[in-house]
Amino acid sequence: MNEFDLIETYFAPLAGEEGLRLKDDTALFRPAPHHDLLITTDSFVEGVHFPRGMYGADVAERLLRTNLSDIAAKGGTPRGYQLSFSMRAGLMEKWIPAFAKGLETTQAEFGCSLWGGDTTATDGPASFSITLIGDVPEGEMIQRSGAEAGDDIWVSGELGDAMLGCRLVTAVPIIPPPNGPELFAYEAAYWRPEPCFKYRDILRRHATASADVSDGLLADVGHIMKSSAVSAALNFDALPFSLGAETWADHQDDPVAAKQALVSFGDDYGVVFSAKARDRQAIFDTARHAKLKLTLIGSVLEGTGVACLDVDGETLLWPSSGYRHK
Amino acid sequence: MNEFDLIETYFAPLAGEEGLRLKDDTALFRPAPHHDLLITTDSFVEGVHFPRGMYGADVAERLLRTNLSDIAAKGGTPRGYQLSFSMRAGLMEKWIPAFAKGLETTQAEFGCSLWGGDTTATDGPASFSITLIGDVPEGEMIQRSGAEAGDDIWVSGELGDAMLGCRLVTAVPIIPPPNGPELFAYEAAYWRPEPCFKYRDILRRHATASADVSDGLLADVGHIMKSSAVSAALNFDALPFSLGAETWADHQDDPVAAKQALVSFGDDYGVVFSAKARDRQAIFDTARHAKLKLTLIGSVLEGTGVACLDVDGETLLWPSSGYRHK
Repeated sequence: MNEFDLIETYFAPLAGEEGLRLKDDTALFRPAPHHDLLITTDSFVEGVHFPRGMYGADVAERLLRTNLSDIAAKGGTPRGYQLSFSMRAGLMEKWIPAFAKGLETTQAEFGCSLWGGDTTATDGPASFSITLIGDVPEGEMIQRSGAEAGDDIWVSGELGDAMLGCRLVTAVPIIPPPNGPELFAYEAAYWRPEPCFKYRDILRRHATASADVSDGLLADVGHIMKSSAVSAALNFDALPFSLGAETWADHQDDPVAAKQALVSFGDDYGVVFSAKARDRQAIFDTARHAKLKLTLIGSVLEGTGVACLDVDGETLLWPSSGYRHK
Repeated sequence: MNEFDLIETYFAPLAGEEGLRLKDDTALFRPAPHHDLLITTDSFVEGVHFPRGMYGADVAERLLRTNLSDIAAKGGTPRGYQLSFSMRAGLMEKWIPAFAKGLETTQAEFGCSLWGGDTTATDGPASFSITLIGDVPEGEMIQRSGAEAGDDIWVSGELGDAMLGCRLVTAVPIIPPPNGPELFAYEAAYWRPEPCFKYRDILRRHATASADVSDGLLADVGHIMKSSAVSAALNFDALPFSLGAETWADHQDDPVAAKQALVSFGDDYGVVFSAKARDRQAIFDTARHAKLKLTLIGSVLEGTGVACLDVDGETLLWPSSGYRHK
């Protein structure tokens, strides 16, 4: 099956109207009036971002979801994406149908479509890149640079399952062994991270700065602080670990170090954001009303850096490898 | 040098305002009112699209130019691009500075900037993907689907140098050996293809359908015809081969077959388009006035397919490998 047939068979059915049936030189997108566009790119390489031989649908779903997570964290709505991949010619027919299926499931769930792309044969590891385009009402993108001293810091969802999920898919032992529901939760957290679109109203109404949790909570808070030229004090004991992750950490020789590892690992794909302290009650109420898990984890201060404080107000030492301040 | 330092040192200086210093989760682009967006993606893999060890600046320039060519052929203006690449960690510092330099030169020439992207280390062949975004006044994109029976078919520039340039860079002998100016022309055609932005006014005013010459003139005319549900009759003797390519073909055992090879090879990156026959004089005059090379090479007819006729009106047989009708 050559490139043209591959596109016609597996990818043309995923194309939105903007994709012009994947038969033109470019896609054609008419932006909604008074909207800004958000554009993001994420790439996966076989053997780096997913193990060789991994099922194509899972890879597609995770790749598209990591892109969606960026749009979601900025308060945006996804519209369409360009897909580029290179892969061994001999694997195409075997692997690509499932990959396309994973895209189909995910784009249907989040309301976007394929607009175009490029495919290449390679004799090296396969690689995949998606550029996703979304929009927000004019001026409403939540950037990383808007946090101010006095703001609260919030994080959505639960932390820790993604790191344990990564151990599952890379066959690193988890001790004690997780039970059935925990296994399911870990795998889902890693392979099907949930872009935070449910938090969009809260973000647009209240967030002064935001980032998705892709490099690790601590690093992502650090990105916001650096872009905003402020510092953060996080309350370590307030961090919303999942029950499974909490249990796992408690069984390690050093539970604090285990939790530090959990929040230094990326891939949780929730959103961390700052908001005015005066909005605290409104945010609590909105989240409770919408049944959204949202946790107040710290405060924005003058200065630079991110400090993580234990229950006695002592700054916890942080393993430097887990956190790059930039 | 890690990913953050690499981005900061080599890519942040290329970022436009929309790139938010490459420090946010997404780029932010405010489209001009009443403009449509054109989006295109092209990818290069080491060992497939360029030889291993090729100078980074050349690879960058060619990759960005192939994307620019798509925007140009649709009548658009380039705005910004997302760059994704994966590369052996050990090569990054040696190779990437020149690659970034090639991007800088090219984006400055064509008036666009870097908006974002993703970088990954791999132990396989390096791969590079660019998604370029441009715009046109609302409704003015020239699609592939607008050609009608009775239209003329035009091509910009000269044909053939790119195939000979490819022979140069892949060390396939060219017999007879080209002279100095020919060498320069071949190499330039292959490595620095010229996106057809100079033809933008003519395209917007007159073209009913268009494509850039990337798959080979015959194939690209075929794409337009198929999308437009019409057929083409091309005048083989009118095809505007460069003097070097013409000379080369005349020295081959079968000059006609040699020319067929030249127009079956892609990468000339001019634009081929259809236009109303009543606009013929206006197009000639505009091109002459603007000193643009534009050649009338055939006609659009009812039916399907592409026929290439010699001076006696006989249909030339075409090697099927050189031309996919789709």
